[in-house]
Amino acid sequence: MGRLGSIFRELQTISGKPYVTKEKEELLCYSYDATGISHLPDMVVFPGSEIEISKILQMASKEKLIVVPRGTGSGMTGGSVPVKGGLIMVLTRMNKIIDIDEENFTVRVQPGVIVSDIHKAVEEKGLFYPPDPSSSSICTIGGNVGECAGGPRAVKYGVTRDYVLGLRAVLPSGKVIQTGVSTAKGVAGYDLTRLIVGSEGTLAVVTEITLKLLPKPEAVKTMAVLFDSMAKAARTVSGIMKNTVVPRCVEYLDEACLHLIRDHLKFDPAKNIKALLIIELDGAIDTVEKDAERIKAFCFASDALDVMTAKTPAEAQSLWEARKALSPVLYKLAPHKINEDIVVPINKIPDMVEATQRIQRTSGLKVVSFGHAGDGNIHCNIMYDKSNGDERYRAEKALKELFRETLRLGGTITGEHGVGITKKRFLPDEIGETQIELMRGIKTVFDPLNILNPYKIFE
Amino acid sequence: MGRLGSIFRELQTISGKPYVTKEKEELLCYSYDATGISHLPDMVVFPGSEIEISKILQMASKEKLIVVPRGTGSGMTGGSVPVKGGLIMVLTRMNKIIDIDEENFTVRVQPGVIVSDIHKAVEEKGLFYPPDPSSSSICTIGGNVGECAGGPRAVKYGVTRDYVLGLRAVLPSGKVIQTGVSTAKGVAGYDLTRLIVGSEGTLAVVTEITLKLLPKPEAVKTMAVLFDSMAKAARTVSGIMKNTVVPRCVEYLDEACLHLIRDHLKFDPAKNIKALLIIELDGAIDTVEKDAERIKAFCFASDALDVMTAKTPAEAQSLWEARKALSPVLYKLAPHKINEDIVVPINKIPDMVEATQRIQRTSGLKVVSFGHAGDGNIHCNIMYDKSNGDERYRAEKALKELFRETLRLGGTITGEHGVGITKKRFLPDEIGETQIELMRGIKTVFDPLNILNPYKIFE
Repeated sequence: MGRLGSIFRELQTISGKPYVTKEKEELLCYSYDATGISHLPDMVVFPGSEIEISKILQMASKEKLIVVPRGTGSGMTGGSVPVKGGLIMVLTRMNKIIDIDEENFTVRVQPGVIVSDIHKAVEEKGLFYPPDPSSSSICTIGGNVGECAGGPRAVKYGVTRDYVLGLRAVLPSGKVIQTGVSTAKGVAGYDLTRLIVGSEGTLAVVTEITLKLLPKPEAVKTMAVLFDSMAKAARTVSGIMKNTVVPRCVEYLDEACLHLIRDHLKFDPAKNIKALLIIELDGAIDTVEKDAERIKAFCFASDALDVMTAKTPAEAQSLWEARKALSPVLYKLAPHKINEDIVVPINKIPDMVEATQRIQRTSGLKVVSFGHAGDGNIHCNIMYDKSNGDERYRAEKALKELFRETLRLGGTITGEHGVGITKKRFLPDEIGETQIELMRGIKTVFDPLNILNPYKIFE
Repeated sequence: MGRLGSIFRELQTISGKPYVTKEKEELLCYSYDATGISHLPDMVVFPGSEIEISKILQMASKEKLIVVPRGTGSGMTGGSVPVKGGLIMVLTRMNKIIDIDEENFTVRVQPGVIVSDIHKAVEEKGLFYPPDPSSSSICTIGGNVGECAGGPRAVKYGVTRDYVLGLRAVLPSGKVIQTGVSTAKGVAGYDLTRLIVGSEGTLAVVTEITLKLLPKPEAVKTMAVLFDSMAKAARTVSGIMKNTVVPRCVEYLDEACLHLIRDHLKFDPAKNIKALLIIELDGAIDTVEKDAERIKAFCFASDALDVMTAKTPAEAQSLWEARKALSPVLYKLAPHKINEDIVVPINKIPDMVEATQRIQRTSGLKVVSFGHAGDGNIHCNIMYDKSNGDERYRAEKALKELFRETLRLGGTITGEHGVGITKKRFLPDEIGETQIELMRGIKTVFDPLNILNPYKIFE
């Protein structure tokens, strides 16, 4: 029996036979994420507890076995793809909401809990967990912590990082740590909590997360604002933030997007509608009413064609469904997409919009953009056909141009998707070799044998 | 000319003769912080630019010279005290507010800017920087970043960490890094920004800070709530958060405090007043009015003796002055104090109050507590006379008991003051040896020669 054979047997002993597999069909299911990039792992394990995870990592250290932790695989940058094989550790069995503490405004969860289940559970108690990535109905909180997920509400409420108070995690050695606090404040030593948040599963396997909660807002108001020019919409975004209030969401969709989801819309984009803003406010009932009026007035003042306020939660819901329908329907334009989540300062959005339009012209490829305009986080999609060598070349060129512009405007190449494998070669352009050296050093401190999700973020 | 002599000359060349000193009188001025703990440095330098700082650290690396960066020395845990001598690097000359970006809600500052100067500058433009430690009129933003300062407004707005978007910093090697982003989102690699925040000047010398700003709240309302029992006040705090709204501040003062600052108060604590809550709300005008009513009603429902709402900003101001007058007047009780900033979950405040009262009885020392009840951050002061061996012993015993209780209640030994040297020996009890090992490893990655503010946080 070879090395892998004995490892397999040991995994069966640790997690139980039903929870370990090396069947080709099953390996395939855990070989890819939302990028479509695929590499076969050697085995898959579904641990049921922190103790199992600790034993597995102790064994992996002994065997120098690569371990790649993952949730539901909805990642956008290949962070959970086992590029060099090894063991995939699927954390979806660890899906308990351990405790909602209504007096201290915290919730303790296991990494495999689906994010929207957290939303439901805490909202039933009048509490609120703001981060809401578009994938919230399928992605796990563990993945959100690994990538520091954001989503539309980050405009007002910030990202996952801002809600993680403390973590339990298993180091590659198998040792368990409990970082941070369950209180609002805490500065006892270096901030290992936020170091692990956004580390893309390369430093430790998170087994428990303590999240900060807020009181659930009394009222929410959602409006759709139409423009006959993307530039006007972009200018309006930075204007709103400065001249009215901070909405909880300011999403935008460009003309190409609107045509793709026209069936979901209550208006006809063909009628010279070139851009849509979805603006959502929350807060105390009358404040929200007043703020909505101020924003409406401001939008008309900056040449909006129309402002449609959702009259019922259902109407608001359908607007969000239209927005969320986008990612999948993009494939109507081309079989493949390069999906980036660049961020630029809010007042640079108009420049970025111009840049993407220029890139579309020069590349001759469809470049579709939509996203979280309120925090400058633009999801820019370069559509192409992989099987066409010339298109591959032009897409690659377009991507480089996109990142160059982003950095020139003082932005970042990733707002919430992480670096994973797809952005690895661009990271040095943004942060420089000195910082990458520090990150390599930190990786070695946590993972001296380089067995935990290696070859991600940086070489 | 000895080693120190040539180092001194080199410093004169780098920063200019007027900005380097080794005069005993001047060394004394930079030998201590707010703890009163004092160690003489060998020299003091006042660099005027990042380039100078880089050159100084290159030289220090070559010479294996200890460098301790500091601002105005208002720290509470000895973080800037040169325990083994070396070079004190005072950053107060780097006090420029570089740029207030009204469209992107950010401000870029140098580390030597006084925090209250940032408040004034951004508020003039209708913007708001929430963190407001009690020392804000004398402490520097660099120190706030180093310790991850909090203050009363953290209840609603969070701490320094939550507002630092990006940093420029010089590594002990002299290399300059630019971490984070100037945008709301960013996940390009490990979170070095928040790793440096709260690292107490042990990883890098921060030379520029990009802070997130909010729109300035329309209205602020401040109220004083009186109780005839500390337990009632404590119960009220957790009740407010759960049953009404999240105020921006909920401070509390115990009976001993009230007697110390009676001259500043509009009521007589002798009239069976055992506890005071200072509650401050902000937001849109009418929301604040309504919220104030709800809170008032709730306080009376939970046995408040009286609720006094400040009618003018001046009245509110004088209430805060009373609160801020506390720290200094404590010395009326005893010549020395052990000042701790423990945090417990909000609903554990009543237990903590009991514990401190018990510790006062068992130790026979005055134990005075006040602080940021809204986030469970209690400033607990054990008053004693160092020159009295027996009191020293009892104070030490009381301190250990205090920390034991704090951890037992699920709290942390430091909410905002950091570990420095005074809490070093207690850190392992809270976070354990494994995490300290990781922190040592991270320290070595940033500072392989251990020249930057060594012997702090952990050995």
